[in-house]
Amino acid sequence: MSEQGYDPRTGKPVGEPVESTSDSGVDAVASAAAAAFEAWSARSAAERAAVLEQVADALDAESELLVATADGETALGVPRLTTELKRTTDQLRLFGEVLREGSFAEATIDSPNPDTVPPRPDLRRVLRPLGTVAVFSASNFPFAFSVAGGDTASALAAGCPVVVKAHPSHPGTSRETGRVVTAALRAAGAPEGLFGVVHGTEAGVALVRHPAVRAVGFTGSTAGGRALFDLANSRPDPIPFYGELGSVNPTVVLPGAAAHTPDEVATGFAGSLVLGVGQFCTSPGLLFAPASLLEPLAAAVSGAAGGPMLNERMSGAYRSGVDELAASGLVTPAATGSKPEGGYGVEPRLFSVPIGVFAENTEKLTEEHFGPAAIVVTYTEVDELLAVLPTLPGSLTATVHSSPGEHAVAGRVAEVLRHVAGRLIFNGWPTGVAVAWGTHHGGPWPSTTNPLHTSVGATSIRRWLAPVTYQSWPEDLLPAELRDANPLGVPRRRDGVLGTA
Amino acid sequence: MSEQGYDPRTGKPVGEPVESTSDSGVDAVASAAAAAFEAWSARSAAERAAVLEQVADALDAESELLVATADGETALGVPRLTTELKRTTDQLRLFGEVLREGSFAEATIDSPNPDTVPPRPDLRRVLRPLGTVAVFSASNFPFAFSVAGGDTASALAAGCPVVVKAHPSHPGTSRETGRVVTAALRAAGAPEGLFGVVHGTEAGVALVRHPAVRAVGFTGSTAGGRALFDLANSRPDPIPFYGELGSVNPTVVLPGAAAHTPDEVATGFAGSLVLGVGQFCTSPGLLFAPASLLEPLAAAVSGAAGGPMLNERMSGAYRSGVDELAASGLVTPAATGSKPEGGYGVEPRLFSVPIGVFAENTEKLTEEHFGPAAIVVTYTEVDELLAVLPTLPGSLTATVHSSPGEHAVAGRVAEVLRHVAGRLIFNGWPTGVAVAWGTHHGGPWPSTTNPLHTSVGATSIRRWLAPVTYQSWPEDLLPAELRDANPLGVPRRRDGVLGTA
Repeated sequence: MSEQGYDPRTGKPVGEPVESTSDSGVDAVASAAAAAFEAWSARSAAERAAVLEQVADALDAESELLVATADGETALGVPRLTTELKRTTDQLRLFGEVLREGSFAEATIDSPNPDTVPPRPDLRRVLRPLGTVAVFSASNFPFAFSVAGGDTASALAAGCPVVVKAHPSHPGTSRETGRVVTAALRAAGAPEGLFGVVHGTEAGVALVRHPAVRAVGFTGSTAGGRALFDLANSRPDPIPFYGELGSVNPTVVLPGAAAHTPDEVATGFAGSLVLGVGQFCTSPGLLFAPASLLEPLAAAVSGAAGGPMLNERMSGAYRSGVDELAASGLVTPAATGSKPEGGYGVEPRLFSVPIGVFAENTEKLTEEHFGPAAIVVTYTEVDELLAVLPTLPGSLTATVHSSPGEHAVAGRVAEVLRHVAGRLIFNGWPTGVAVAWGTHHGGPWPSTTNPLHTSVGATSIRRWLAPVTYQSWPEDLLPAELRDANPLGVPRRRDGVLGTA
Repeated sequence: MSEQGYDPRTGKPVGEPVESTSDSGVDAVASAAAAAFEAWSARSAAERAAVLEQVADALDAESELLVATADGETALGVPRLTTELKRTTDQLRLFGEVLREGSFAEATIDSPNPDTVPPRPDLRRVLRPLGTVAVFSASNFPFAFSVAGGDTASALAAGCPVVVKAHPSHPGTSRETGRVVTAALRAAGAPEGLFGVVHGTEAGVALVRHPAVRAVGFTGSTAGGRALFDLANSRPDPIPFYGELGSVNPTVVLPGAAAHTPDEVATGFAGSLVLGVGQFCTSPGLLFAPASLLEPLAAAVSGAAGGPMLNERMSGAYRSGVDELAASGLVTPAATGSKPEGGYGVEPRLFSVPIGVFAENTEKLTEEHFGPAAIVVTYTEVDELLAVLPTLPGSLTATVHSSPGEHAVAGRVAEVLRHVAGRLIFNGWPTGVAVAWGTHHGGPWPSTTNPLHTSVGATSIRRWLAPVTYQSWPEDLLPAELRDANPLGVPRRRDGVLGTA
C-alpha cells in the first residue's frame, strides 16, 4: 500500500508515492516517541522554546520547496501557501513565547493551614505533559493543520512527543515537512525519536489504539472524527481525544445591516465563501438574512469563482451533496458561480429557504457541504430568528452583521449564539483564524469533540497537560516552578493570590 | 420502586423510603434546570458567590439534623460527619472566593495587529458555563461528594444548573440536604428549578441521556463509572464526563525510612488504612516496603479496628474480594484487625507479596478492594521498585516515605510516580483531601476518566466552563469581564501580558 499525491488542477499524479506504514512500523515510531518522553519533558520550558524556534527557522528556510510541493498536491496557490507556512512557523514561535512566559504551567502554592477543615498541608500544583500525542493531519491546511501544524507545535511545547498521521491528499508535502522538522529537531539537540510521521488509514487506527499514545489531536470530517473518537474511548484505558469535526458557521444579517450595507455584506460573504474553494472549517455555510438581501447575495456568488478541490473524493462529495440538496425540494437554487476546466474543479452554489421551512428541516439543512456552498435562510421577524438559532448544531464560529442602530438586537442574538459557537464575530467573516493568546478555535458538538479546548492559539497547549500536586515535598525535590525561590520567575498563585513574575 | 436507607450498625431499615424518580420525573427536573440556565448564568460571579454562601450558611444551620440523618444511614459517626459537613460548606465558601477573585474566567484580550500572519482582529476570550450538569453522588461522603458536594458547588459556581442523582445508600440524607439547598436557593433569589435531586439507577441513566444535560460529574466504582462514561460518549452529541473511579494509591517506603522510623510508618499506615473503614478513594491499598517493615505493619494492622461498611453490597464485596485474594495463592496473609459485631462490619486485612511475584501478577494484585485491605509488596533493591512502579494503574495519589539521607532516590521515585498519580505525598498519608487552590484530586485512568481535571479544589470549576472568543465586538455588547474598563476588576491577560486586578 502507498499514498499518491494528485494535482487537483489536472487530476494527474504528482510526485513519488509514499509507502503506508505497517503496524510494526507504527509500533516502532510510537515506541521511539514514548522513549523520548522523559528526556523531552525534563527540558525546561525555555529550552523547549528554543527548539521550537529552530524548527520554525528551518521550515522558513525551506519555504520555496515546501510551498511548491504543497501547491502541486493541493492547488491552493503559492500566495496562500506561502502565507500559511508563515502562519505555521509563527505559531511555533508563539508557543516559544508561551513557554517563556510560563503561566501555562498554572503554578499554584498553598501554605499549610491547620485551621481549615480538613487541615491544609503544603500543596503545590503544576501542569505536566501527558505523554506521546497522536496528531491527525487535515487535508485543507497542508501546513497549519498538518505535520508541523498547531497540534504538533502545542504538543511539543507541552513537553510531549508527537507521532503525526499524514493526510493522504498531500503525502509529498507531509514527507518533506517531516524531513525538515526531524532534521531541525536533531540539529537543536532534541531527543531522538521525539517526532515521527506515519502514513495510511490503518496506521492511524493502530496509532489511536497504541498503548504508548496518551492523547489524540484530530482535524477532519465528522464521520472520520467520530470513528476515531469512539476508538479512543473504547480503549481499555480511554485517552483524551480532541477532534475538530464539521461546522456550518451560521451568519446572521440583521435587518438594519441588510438595509444599509447590502452590497458590502454580499461581497464580503461571497469572498469568505469561496476562500480556499470553501475548504475552510470556518466557511460560512448558513446565512440568515432578510429576503431583500437575496438579490445582492445571488449577484455576488454568481460573479465568484470556484476552483479545484483538494482531491477527487471531496470534489465528488461536494457535487453529489449540493445536487442532492437542490433535488430535495426544500431549497431554491439562488446562484451558481464559475468553475475552472478539468481536474477537481467545482463552482460556488447558493440556495435559499424561508425560515419556516428551515425550522421544520433543521437536521437536513444544517448538514455541512464541504466546499463553496451555502444556504440563505430568509426571515422577516427577529423573533423567528431567535427561536430558530438555538436549534442549530454546534459550530466553530457564528457571525452577526448589525448596523449601529440595532445593537440591542445584536446583543440578544449573541446571547443565543454563544451556546452555538466558540467564536462570535461582529460585522466580519469567519474565515481567517488568528493565532493569538485569545484565540478560541472550538465549539459545541459536532464542531469539536470537547467543548472545553481549542486547537488554535496559546491555550491549545492545555490539551496536553495534566495537573500534579506535590504535598509536603522538600524544596530540593520540587519542580523548579514550585520552589519557594521561583528560580524560573513564572507567574504563580500563592495562597489564592495571583502574582505576575 | 423506592430507596430505603439501612443502619450499617444493625442492618435494619432507617427512615422512610424515598420514591425513585420516573423517566418523566427526570425530564421535568432536567427541563426545569435547563430553563433556569439563562437567568443563573446571567448573574455576575459576585452574585453567584453570595448565593453559594447563603446555601453554606443554611446547611450549617441544619447541621444537627443532617449529621444525625447521615449517621443513621452511614454509621460514619457524628465527629467525622460534623467535620465533613463543615468541609462541604467551606467548599461552597471557597467557590465564593474563587468567583470574587475572578481569574477563573480566564479573561484575555488581544488588540488588533495588522502585521501578524494572518492579521489579528480584536479578540477577547472568556470562559462561560456549559449548561445543565448531572452530578452522581458517592456513597462514602454523604456530604462532601454528595448532594451539596464538590461537583454541585463547582457547577453552581460556574453558572450551571445542577441535577443530582442521589446515592441509594443515604436516601434520607440526600432528601434532607436537597430540601435545605432548595430552600436556601429560593431564599437567596436563585431562579426556580436551578437545582434538583433525582433517585434511582434508571433515573441516573435517563439523566446522562437527557438532551438538556451538557456534562456529568461522577464519583463511584470503576464498573459503574465506565458504564456511564460509555453512555455519555455514545450520545448523538457526546458530552464531557468527569468520573472519579477506583484508585489503589500506592505508597513507597524507602529503605532509610523503614530502618529509621518503622513504628511511625506502620502506625501512620494502619491509621490511614482504617480511616472511614477504608472507604476513601484515597485509601492506601498498596505499600512497597522492605521486608523488615512487615512485622511492625502487621502488628499495627492487627491492633486496628474495622467497622461497619456503608451498605450490605459493599460489605459483601469486600469480604468476598479479600477472601478470593487470600485464596489466590499469590499473597500471604499478614494481619487481620478486629471488627464490630453485627450489621455490615468488616475487619482490616493485610497481605504481603514479594515484588517478583507482584511484577508477574500486577493486574490481579492492583484490583481495588474497597474497604480496609492492603497488600505490602516487599522489595530489596530500589531498582526493582523503579522497574515496577511505572506498571501500576493510574491512582489519585502516590506517597513516598523517605529519610533525610535518601532524597536523591525519593526524587527518582517521584519522577516515575508523577505519571501514575495526580497527587504526590511526601512522608504523609493519602487520606484527607484538603479543599484549596492547589488541590488536585484526579489522576490517570482508571482513577479518573479525564486526567486533565480535578473534582476537588478551586480549579474543579474549570470542568463546567467552555471558552467563547468575541471578535471585533463593540464595547457595549461585550461581557463585563472583557470590556476595556474592566468594571469587575478581574485579572486579565492583555496582549500576552498577565495583569492582576
